[in-house]
Amino acid sequence: MEKFEINILGCGSALPTMKHYPSSQVVNIREKLFMIDCGEGAQLQLRRSRLKFSRLNHVFISHLHGDHCFGLIGLLSTFGMLGRTATMHIYSPKELPALMQPLVDFFCKGMSYRVEFHPFDTRSSSIIYEDRSVTVSTIPLRHRIACAGFLFREKPTPNHIIRDMIDFYAIPTFAINRIKNGEDYTLPDGTIIPNKWLTRPSAPPRSYAYCSDTMYQPELADIVRNVDLLYHEATFAESEAGRAQETFHTTASQAARLAKDADVKRLLIGHYSARYDDESILIKEACEVFPNTVAAKENLCITL
Amino acid sequence: MEKFEINILGCGSALPTMKHYPSSQVVNIREKLFMIDCGEGAQLQLRRSRLKFSRLNHVFISHLHGDHCFGLIGLLSTFGMLGRTATMHIYSPKELPALMQPLVDFFCKGMSYRVEFHPFDTRSSSIIYEDRSVTVSTIPLRHRIACAGFLFREKPTPNHIIRDMIDFYAIPTFAINRIKNGEDYTLPDGTIIPNKWLTRPSAPPRSYAYCSDTMYQPELADIVRNVDLLYHEATFAESEAGRAQETFHTTASQAARLAKDADVKRLLIGHYSARYDDESILIKEACEVFPNTVAAKENLCITL
Repeated sequence: MEKFEINILGCGSALPTMKHYPSSQVVNIREKLFMIDCGEGAQLQLRRSRLKFSRLNHVFISHLHGDHCFGLIGLLSTFGMLGRTATMHIYSPKELPALMQPLVDFFCKGMSYRVEFHPFDTRSSSIIYEDRSVTVSTIPLRHRIACAGFLFREKPTPNHIIRDMIDFYAIPTFAINRIKNGEDYTLPDGTIIPNKWLTRPSAPPRSYAYCSDTMYQPELADIVRNVDLLYHEATFAESEAGRAQETFHTTASQAARLAKDADVKRLLIGHYSARYDDESILIKEACEVFPNTVAAKENLCITL
Repeated sequence: MEKFEINILGCGSALPTMKHYPSSQVVNIREKLFMIDCGEGAQLQLRRSRLKFSRLNHVFISHLHGDHCFGLIGLLSTFGMLGRTATMHIYSPKELPALMQPLVDFFCKGMSYRVEFHPFDTRSSSIIYEDRSVTVSTIPLRHRIACAGFLFREKPTPNHIIRDMIDFYAIPTFAINRIKNGEDYTLPDGTIIPNKWLTRPSAPPRSYAYCSDTMYQPELADIVRNVDLLYHEATFAESEAGRAQETFHTTASQAARLAKDADVKRLLIGHYSARYDDESILIKEACEVFPNTVAAKENLCITL
């Protein structure tokens, strides 16, 4: 199966701790790397991950709080020093370009590659990136400032042909693509060979949803329904539900409730408040509602 | 003796490695903290150091390369979240305020303290900070862009009075301060008691010089002469002397030659190029010229 991995570079929240880096992840889809959020130190963690810098051409920033974007200028500057030539595409809420461009102009003067900004609207869900194998769409979130999550969806791949059957019916090469795409085949004598005799279904397309930062929004279930992996912030334990509401964050059990309502395969929680010495209370509360929950931690890699 | 300590938060150079954080140090003089340079991750390292955030009111930025200042916005933002009220003073080359102010305005909106910028001229040596116990002056360096080092000098402290002698001569309280400051004392009968009978000299004032980044400049010896500790960049080994010259950096043995010429007590080297897996070649080459050399490393604390 083609690679679809989530690499956690950081999963802490705004206040720095000695246990966690601020938010940053890298989604690796068939060796194309997509970074989601870029907190301070993300470039160090990226190096630690041994992911190839040159494979990273797209960075998605969920919102403009420092713990999700302060690592960006360091990353861009380092790429410049390493002689990168490929354009770097940055997808973000609309205020980022005006903040970043002066820094890029000053600190990355004369560098050998371009930075291209792609601002998006955080209030509705839309496709902001697409290539032959994946689409990325925004997920409107509710935080103190404009904020969006990201939904990565593999595109369906054609069925696999069964070579022996193709040979058996002496089907010519020019017909193969249509068969891969689901068509039946009609023999010269008019006999129809049903597609399912000629092909095996390919692996179902996989999907990953990233939701941070946001207050609990039950209606997100419709957008993230059935995803293979849902990352959802779980900043607080249930005892801090009031604080979660006030600060537009989510508790671990609320994140789990969403995962359950949306019938996702697995839940990954993160963005832990600095008040927790470890995340055991958060994972415990989430698992009570949705047992298939994993706690994010630095350098964790999850394969879909 | 009053505290005078140098805490190394980071001593790597521009390209991030897994061994070093970029440049940042904290000078602790009598529990007043002075940060020098603030590379990405400095706030994490500051937390690790267990130095008190609230004691830090002055940050000195040597020059505007990213590995010396990309950690600043994260530091300022975190201080805001922690409810800091004391003004933070930032001393830097003149371009920093225009680059930082928009970031502070956006990311630290509504925070409870002020940031005050103090731009300085990097071309001459001048006092940029002074309080009752210390002065900080700039050291003009030669790098690819405007760059200054910093010289921390304790002010001389008054002599200690010898209580028994004061009592013996029945010297009144109002005369004590003048005696501390070196005056002799005249008894009612006209007899002059020399100051040295009444006082013991206090500890000589200590000094610390920070020089990074710069090409080798023999004339710096005059400015840093006799300091207790000289931090000097030693980006390269002697085999890369050409590269050092081209990039306006220094080799370890050049740093040591300066230490020797300036007759400093101790040399601390750092700002290691990412090409060195460890710093043994650098410390070896420096020690050959100036034996009392120490290699900087993260979390090292040197007491003067």
